[in-house]
Amino acid sequence: MTRRILLDHGSGGMASRQLIETVFLPRLNNPVLARFEDSAVLSAGAARIAFTTDSYVVDPIFFPGGDIGLLAVHGTVNDLAMQGARPLALSLSLILEEGFAMAELERLADSIGRAADNCRVPIVTGDTKVVPRGKADKIFINTSGIGLVPDHLVLGADLARPGDTVLLSGFLGDHGVTIMAARAGLSMQSAIQSDTAPLHTMVAAMLRAAPGGIRCLRDPTRGGAATVLAEIAASSGVRIEIDEDRLPVRPGVKTACELLGLDPLYLANEGKCIAIVEAGAAEILLTAMRETPEGRDARVIGTVTATSSEKHPARVILKTGIGGARIVGPLSGEPLPRIC
Amino acid sequence: MTRRILLDHGSGGMASRQLIETVFLPRLNNPVLARFEDSAVLSAGAARIAFTTDSYVVDPIFFPGGDIGLLAVHGTVNDLAMQGARPLALSLSLILEEGFAMAELERLADSIGRAADNCRVPIVTGDTKVVPRGKADKIFINTSGIGLVPDHLVLGADLARPGDTVLLSGFLGDHGVTIMAARAGLSMQSAIQSDTAPLHTMVAAMLRAAPGGIRCLRDPTRGGAATVLAEIAASSGVRIEIDEDRLPVRPGVKTACELLGLDPLYLANEGKCIAIVEAGAAEILLTAMRETPEGRDARVIGTVTATSSEKHPARVILKTGIGGARIVGPLSGEPLPRIC
Repeated sequence: MTRRILLDHGSGGMASRQLIETVFLPRLNNPVLARFEDSAVLSAGAARIAFTTDSYVVDPIFFPGGDIGLLAVHGTVNDLAMQGARPLALSLSLILEEGFAMAELERLADSIGRAADNCRVPIVTGDTKVVPRGKADKIFINTSGIGLVPDHLVLGADLARPGDTVLLSGFLGDHGVTIMAARAGLSMQSAIQSDTAPLHTMVAAMLRAAPGGIRCLRDPTRGGAATVLAEIAASSGVRIEIDEDRLPVRPGVKTACELLGLDPLYLANEGKCIAIVEAGAAEILLTAMRETPEGRDARVIGTVTATSSEKHPARVILKTGIGGARIVGPLSGEPLPRIC
Repeated sequence: MTRRILLDHGSGGMASRQLIETVFLPRLNNPVLARFEDSAVLSAGAARIAFTTDSYVVDPIFFPGGDIGLLAVHGTVNDLAMQGARPLALSLSLILEEGFAMAELERLADSIGRAADNCRVPIVTGDTKVVPRGKADKIFINTSGIGLVPDHLVLGADLARPGDTVLLSGFLGDHGVTIMAARAGLSMQSAIQSDTAPLHTMVAAMLRAAPGGIRCLRDPTRGGAATVLAEIAASSGVRIEIDEDRLPVRPGVKTACELLGLDPLYLANEGKCIAIVEAGAAEILLTAMRETPEGRDARVIGTVTATSSEKHPARVILKTGIGGARIVGPLSGEPLPRIC
């Protein structure tokens, strides 16, 4: 049987990781790529530059709370912010399907322009390709970005240590449920909408409050909070315990998840941040987060409890309300294609 | 009639320019983007960073002389080189069609890895999306790149001055003819192949030879040499004269152009550079170019003859062998879709 690309390879979960580890890492071998961070951090003269890229293929391209253009700007700003970088500039590259309505392109360009303005990040370079009808679906957008990383700041998924506190900046699953509901033709009574939002202002506030107290920042997009936490546990060689009762999920998202058979821990978020922080800095960081609009619902959701051992492998444990516990692995199998 | 995106909007010629000028520039307004250079140049701390992006949608994805992966690495390295930048790092973002053969992806990853090695530019960050079968065509690749621009170096399409010399680094049209012939199912007797090649080593040699003598570098990809020259003439407000007899076109390309009704001046090149240089530095720059494999066929092809005036608008004149002259405008109409 010919081996082929499956939808799952783009899930952001285990199959994505395996594809990168088996096909790309051996051939593009370099230590920066192998860190698997949202942005690469490299030296450019005296400066430390964060550099990141993401392509957006979300379907539908307009959805409650946003559109593919807004998502592209925010997503790349957020990947820079997750390395503590101040975004300097974005690129914008479009693949358009012949016949795409100019009015929709203009609406997206409006949205992209406003988002860049709001983030105070200029779009400084771009590219436009057009493919014949049927060879792409409406519009695909790539945004890459560069940012300046503060001197001496080092964040990484491998830096979590026992005793650290796990923070989450707000409600889980809003984006994922919005897209799935839009595709299923479900109209949401409770007006759930995508949480797409830029996180660099919140991160800047955290860095001002306790720059030395932050170990790792990750935005739980494709693959959701579960995948991000599982990656941190594996990279750092630690056990992370999460309290199910503390996980913030809107009632409407909960209902939709039950209806659609989804788990909010695996749903994509587009304006949320998971932070692993020193326990002693947790309170001051939470306060800083809550003072920004993006972090007003920030809370503690768990703890890094131990270094992994032969007996206790690196993993994430979800402690359920009724006193139970289950292992939370990275997203595997069930793909949610074109969620971002 | 609903206004829609046409193939022509992706040609790299007049329609592409108009789309950017009418849809994007007003909404993303910033002085760097408005310069229309291949890379943006911006300050990052004490460093000057060039930043560029390109998406590749070439069809077929494997062709004589290269493939879409090689093209993506070289194309982005070249966009950095055209600003005189030393490439620091690339990003790699893939949009894959469900069902794409893993063996082809591996072959492309090999090619990308080798190209990055040869260019000595690491690929430091990436992204992979998968869309359902029929929603994309096999594979689309975005490469973005950052590079370090030497202190004080300023190159630009607006810097051509009367008396300047126009250099071209080698033969025209190889890539465009290769792709068109492959699509037309023409087997080329004369074994024409894509000229895809990285130009940063040649540019570095030019900068060592006469750093102050270079006004503008451009790689004539989509839209070809004609479009690049027309853009330089318009941006600088000058008249440029090109000698048809001096334009290097391989016999096989000439034949194919006659057969397919194409003009080599409008064909895409993927390893060529047009340089506008001070006349006094032309000889030393040509020598430096010719000492590199990419520039061994470099030559003078024309002159910047005058500042534009009301009577003589900014334009490119092709002086033909038989003593005639014709105006060479940017590519307009006839699109060659998915050439890169």
